[in-house]
Amino acid sequence: MELTESQKQEIEELTSAAYTTKRPTVPAFEEILYKPFPVLDHGFVRVIDYMGDDSAIVQAARVSYGRGTKQTSQDKGLINYLMRHRHTSPFEMCEIKLHVKLPIFVARHWVRHRTASINEYSARYSILDREFYFPKFEDMAAQSTQNHQGRGETLSMAEAEKVFEILKADAAKCYDDYEYMLNENPDGTRKDENRKGLARELARMNLPVSIYTQWYWKTDLHNLFHFLSLRAESHAQKEIRDYANVILDMCRKWVPLATEAFEQHCLGGTHLSRKGLDVVQRMLKGEKVTREDSGLMKGEWNELMAALEIEE
Amino acid sequence: MELTESQKQEIEELTSAAYTTKRPTVPAFEEILYKPFPVLDHGFVRVIDYMGDDSAIVQAARVSYGRGTKQTSQDKGLINYLMRHRHTSPFEMCEIKLHVKLPIFVARHWVRHRTASINEYSARYSILDREFYFPKFEDMAAQSTQNHQGRGETLSMAEAEKVFEILKADAAKCYDDYEYMLNENPDGTRKDENRKGLARELARMNLPVSIYTQWYWKTDLHNLFHFLSLRAESHAQKEIRDYANVILDMCRKWVPLATEAFEQHCLGGTHLSRKGLDVVQRMLKGEKVTREDSGLMKGEWNELMAALEIEE
Amino acid sequence: MELTESQKQEIEELTSAAYTTKRPTVPAFEEILYKPFPVLDHGFVRVIDYMGDDSAIVQAARVSYGRGTKQTSQDKGLINYLMRHRHTSPFEMCEIKLHVKLPIFVARHWVRHRTASINEYSARYSILDREFYFPKFEDMAAQSTQNHQGRGETLSMAEAEKVFEILKADAAKCYDDYEYMLNENPDGTRKDENRKGLARELARMNLPVSIYTQWYWKTDLHNLFHFLSLRAESHAQKEIRDYANVILDMCRKWVPLATEAFEQHCLGGTHLSRKGLDVVQRMLKGEKVTREDSGLMKGEWNELMAALEIEE
Amino acid sequence: MELTESQKQEIEELTSAAYTTKRPTVPAFEEILYKPFPVLDHGFVRVIDYMGDDSAIVQAARVSYGRGTKQTSQDKGLINYLMRHRHTSPFEMCEIKLHVKLPIFVARHWVRHRTASINEYSARYSILDREFYFPKFEDMAAQSTQNHQGRGETLSMAEAEKVFEILKADAAKCYDDYEYMLNENPDGTRKDENRKGLARELARMNLPVSIYTQWYWKTDLHNLFHFLSLRAESHAQKEIRDYANVILDMCRKWVPLATEAFEQHCLGGTHLSRKGLDVVQRMLKGEKVTREDSGLMKGEWNELMAALEIEE
Repeated sequence: MELTESQKQEIEELTSAAYTTKRPTVPAFEEILYKPFPVLDHGFVRVIDYMGDDSAIVQAARVSYGRGTKQTSQDKGLINYLMRHRHTSPFEMCEIKLHVKLPIFVARHWVRHRTASINEYSARYSILDREFYFPKFEDMAAQSTQNHQGRGETLSMAEAEKVFEILKADAAKCYDDYEYMLNENPDGTRKDENRKGLARELARMNLPVSIYTQWYWKTDLHNLFHFLSLRAESHAQKEIRDYANVILDMCRKWVPLATEAFEQHCLGGTHLSRKGLDVVQRMLKGEKVTREDSGLMKGEWNELMAALEIEE
Repeated sequence: MELTESQKQEIEELTSAAYTTKRPTVPAFEEILYKPFPVLDHGFVRVIDYMGDDSAIVQAARVSYGRGTKQTSQDKGLINYLMRHRHTSPFEMCEIKLHVKLPIFVARHWVRHRTASINEYSARYSILDREFYFPKFEDMAAQSTQNHQGRGETLSMAEAEKVFEILKADAAKCYDDYEYMLNENPDGTRKDENRKGLARELARMNLPVSIYTQWYWKTDLHNLFHFLSLRAESHAQKEIRDYANVILDMCRKWVPLATEAFEQHCLGGTHLSRKGLDVVQRMLKGEKVTREDSGLMKGEWNELMAALEIEE
Repeated sequence: MELTESQKQEIEELTSAAYTTKRPTVPAFEEILYKPFPVLDHGFVRVIDYMGDDSAIVQAARVSYGRGTKQTSQDKGLINYLMRHRHTSPFEMCEIKLHVKLPIFVARHWVRHRTASINEYSARYSILDREFYFPKFEDMAAQSTQNHQGRGETLSMAEAEKVFEILKADAAKCYDDYEYMLNENPDGTRKDENRKGLARELARMNLPVSIYTQWYWKTDLHNLFHFLSLRAESHAQKEIRDYANVILDMCRKWVPLATEAFEQHCLGGTHLSRKGLDVVQRMLKGEKVTREDSGLMKGEWNELMAALEIEE
Repeated sequence: MELTESQKQEIEELTSAAYTTKRPTVPAFEEILYKPFPVLDHGFVRVIDYMGDDSAIVQAARVSYGRGTKQTSQDKGLINYLMRHRHTSPFEMCEIKLHVKLPIFVARHWVRHRTASINEYSARYSILDREFYFPKFEDMAAQSTQNHQGRGETLSMAEAEKVFEILKADAAKCYDDYEYMLNENPDGTRKDENRKGLARELARMNLPVSIYTQWYWKTDLHNLFHFLSLRAESHAQKEIRDYANVILDMCRKWVPLATEAFEQHCLGGTHLSRKGLDVVQRMLKGEKVTREDSGLMKGEWNELMAALEIEE
């Protein structure tokens, strides 16, 4: 993650500002405002702005004239109740705006979360930087033999090295050719006066999806938690999971009570289906239940036993 | 608009708070934070929180690391360009949260704007106050003879008085019976020990749609402008228009450049259809155009002539 | 539920139509198309149109060129997998359009489901019918003493009768006055030539929220299931639950595999929080767990024991 | 656009099906159902399913029990009125599902339209085909000197040829290496037994954004028109415009009255700002207006003069 001097200076100015406001403010969260948190090799997440705090959730749930109660224990109990009973609307009352730098293939997963606002860096308007994501050797893995859309065994060092060389060489070649086709100096004049440059919106099509893009992303806390529940869990691709985990950590600073309730009731725990619940009820009554008489398919049975920590 | 002493005190506390923040802050808007602005006879709008300012729009449009430029003239030009060319996403980067007290029939229009978050006072959980909307005499009007869904001529004083008496009496009777059916003291005990009270979720069904409810409503600036473009215009029912106009005024304080661009390009002005544009082009070339050779239906022709201020 | 003769005839014509189409068609569902299914005293739900079937879910999940496999067992397994793992997007590929007649207070709950399209009968444009919802005696209940937003004990016959008389009388008075204020014959002329009528948009404000309205409501299967998961469950008000159950029944005819998976994995079963799962794991290992050492609050502990069918 | 034999056969089967339905059916649209319409060099659009027709719009606007009137002239007038006055909700009552094959960089524009459902071919789960978009020579253009995000002058034949060679070679190299890294036969076994293959979700990151992907895309008519109004117009990138124009043509077959109204009132015509309208009003009164006394900025003035076909 490299920032230019002028970007660093801009961020420096922002973090040293001090305005007066009547709005709910979270001092611990203000501490990290604007600061880039590194993710992957060149990516980052920065909090640009936020609205509301734990007490804003309480305030909205009660449609009150003032803020949430001063008694944290009551707020905590109410927030837990709301989360447990899927009263999701009060969580929509907090909003966050992030600046994210991420590879295009990660952006393509991310954008599927529709209840959010996005302003992305435009490759029609501007020239993309020469920055690509290359996995670390320990993250280079073979196709999983169990999971059709996941990773299995890690590659050997020699194999990983070979993959790394390929990714690096192809990215470099594609970017060199991007620059050649653009034929454009930083001031917009042509590098080679004897030929035209290709329009940016066309030249960019030569770039691989490992190249970094950037965007402003704004969403509310309910939808952020939904994003995290899908992207911080084990089925998500490792690269977007890294972003999700950094954001989850930010939430712990921003809205500690809501995040605790979210981790307790959504991220952790498990869902029992009708038949799965029946299995558990019977087991708790002392009955020996087998897959055959559970009515469950193999896949679901295995997932249930794993969740219950029952070894067969 | 009556607030209880404890509500007034809560608001007083909120408006006298002063926190330190690094977030973009709009001093002129902070001035009106939390204060109830009266609408209709008992309603109000209060700004509870906001996120972003004019420069946040510029920042997102440029996906920059810092804030918008310090040069207001450049920001203004860019914001105008974005509005004119329907680049709406940067306007989604500002967010506002309002506390609104409004009659149920107004709430039923309002809620149709789906890209917003709402927490409404629950009549299943709580008891509604005895507050109803009664139009002023000058707002009591007959059905329009031109517009199937609007008002025409104002009622005579005697007619208006009669309507007022009816609305008042029916509201009072319905509320008296609501209280009777609830049979509930403020502390939850029964008024009349010899009979049960009806559940709140059932008793409330006796109340007319003129009764006031309250909610927290949160939306982004793009969707707020869309709301205003539909609800501040002449086809909207007068009662919701009153709310829209109060909110429009708030926007002028919050995001003056964006609001000016919105009034210039969306609220004001007019849309010309393909044929309407053809009529204007021909007229500007000096041609005399009649409805017959315009290809327009009567309704559209009349609207066009009115927009162009051409009297026939 | 009363339909006019002309409405009955229109429905008759629709149900006897037979067009030829290449689109996926569900014969069992075609049988009930357009037919009003009664809900409450005057309400109904009618299926107006639908798009897709179980195999459309499979087709989208596979992004295939043809329809889902002919082998129902494979489709069933895939649909179950998708539901269990929250791969919700393929369920969005089926769409349904309903015509619903419902009391305004039910409509106010319903409209909170935002990912749906609505066209409601306009009381600004048209005159509402004299139809109100009055609960059956067995549905008249006192406020719950446990649940702040629900019903408890049923009223005595005498109490219920009294409530019924009040609701009926107030509704009749409000509607009589609505008609008086409108002063309008069916052909739009005045009843009493000596006074103006009040505009419809104003007169309607005298009507209680028990009056019936109607709308066209269109949503996709994923969002319909979400609606049902919140509105067919025990915390929802009984009146909207009645609608939800009628619609759930329709789904069983329309998309039997998806509905079975939904009932299995979402409607039925239960969610275990992180601590709740820990309790179950410990119990299954033979440990005796008490609320005190579970780390759970009283409310959550009670809900967990109830779900596990453990009596204390 | 190449389809495999088995895909062709699947499509053949679908187009020769004939089911009986009571649902609104558009015979002219049924004709093109399932058939791939080519776009760009390898892309296509296929209609997979639809719901509703012109009369469904009328039916919803009137919340009627039957279909729209049989008199087309009345339906047409109403649809025009709805479009002109932005009564958009009835247009949401029609729904369409498309199967689209498109380059990733086009998909990245497309997905920004959030009110739609998508199921995309997964490059985590499956292997992408060796199909890339290469612009035709006449579409290879230099960066526009006026428009920061568009194309200007066409490249010379020699320059275009050179660009084509680069794009082709880089795509081939990246795909060869993708296959090498995957090390996977069609049956999932390894090509080279002596090394592991890289997981699909990682290998795909080497592919340029010109590669084709596929998805099912489902949206309602209102949102489809919004998509077309932004993507069929001159500021959109040529490649997505090609898709928009094919879809617009499909709409003409599906909902001819609504599409005509859309072309008349939204696609064609122009919006006049408050000041722009003032300029037109003054000109129509015979006044000579210059940019200086119009109050308009240069850019807006030029756009206005162009729209009015006034040469300066």
